[in-house]
Amino acid sequence: MVTLTVLYGKPDDPAAFERHYAERHMPLVVAMPGLGRWEASKAISATGGGESAYYRTFTAWFETVEQLHQVLGSEQGVAASADVPLFATGGATLFVSEVDVR
Amino acid sequence: MVTLTVLYGKPDDPAAFERHYAERHMPLVVAMPGLGRWEASKAISATGGGESAYYRTFTAWFETVEQLHQVLGSEQGVAASADVPLFATGGATLFVSEVDVR
Repeated sequence: MVTLTVLYGKPDDPAAFERHYAERHMPLVVAMPGLGRWEASKAISATGGGESAYYRTFTAWFETVEQLHQVLGSEQGVAASADVPLFATGGATLFVSEVDVR
Repeated sequence: MVTLTVLYGKPDDPAAFERHYAERHMPLVVAMPGLGRWEASKAISATGGGESAYYRTFTAWFETVEQLHQVLGSEQGVAASADVPLFATGGATLFVSEVDVR
């Protein structure tokens, strides 16, 4: 199993980010054909209580890297990716990971 | 539901990191009383195919922030936290997030 992780840095205008994220970005994301389990989270704090290094995270789980690329490479996946710079004013860090066998 | 996310930067010696992580760190982590669902992943690449910004990630899910603090504040949680600097030569970024209601 592999994951796509998106780490959003703190945006200039969190309210505008939240609006765009909920009303425009997530509808594009969930429209991607073949998207399975995913989870979106909003940072509360660093573990010590200070400010978190990231503002929001998004994780989606896929069976294989090929499936992940198929989903992200779909017309809807390309639209969702192209939307990121329109609201992620604090930057977005994306990477693909392999979940350890447990 | 809240999550603890740990992002490990690329270590100086990945083989030494892996050894310590599997043989010493994870046994300390799973010994933490009250730890529920968790997932450890090793980065493959950035989504574009370049090097990932992080080397490894760890996520654990908790019912509440209070439960998370109870687990991390336990004797075993303190031992697991104290172990991190002993192998995370590329640094470790930790934060607490709230999972969005879906």
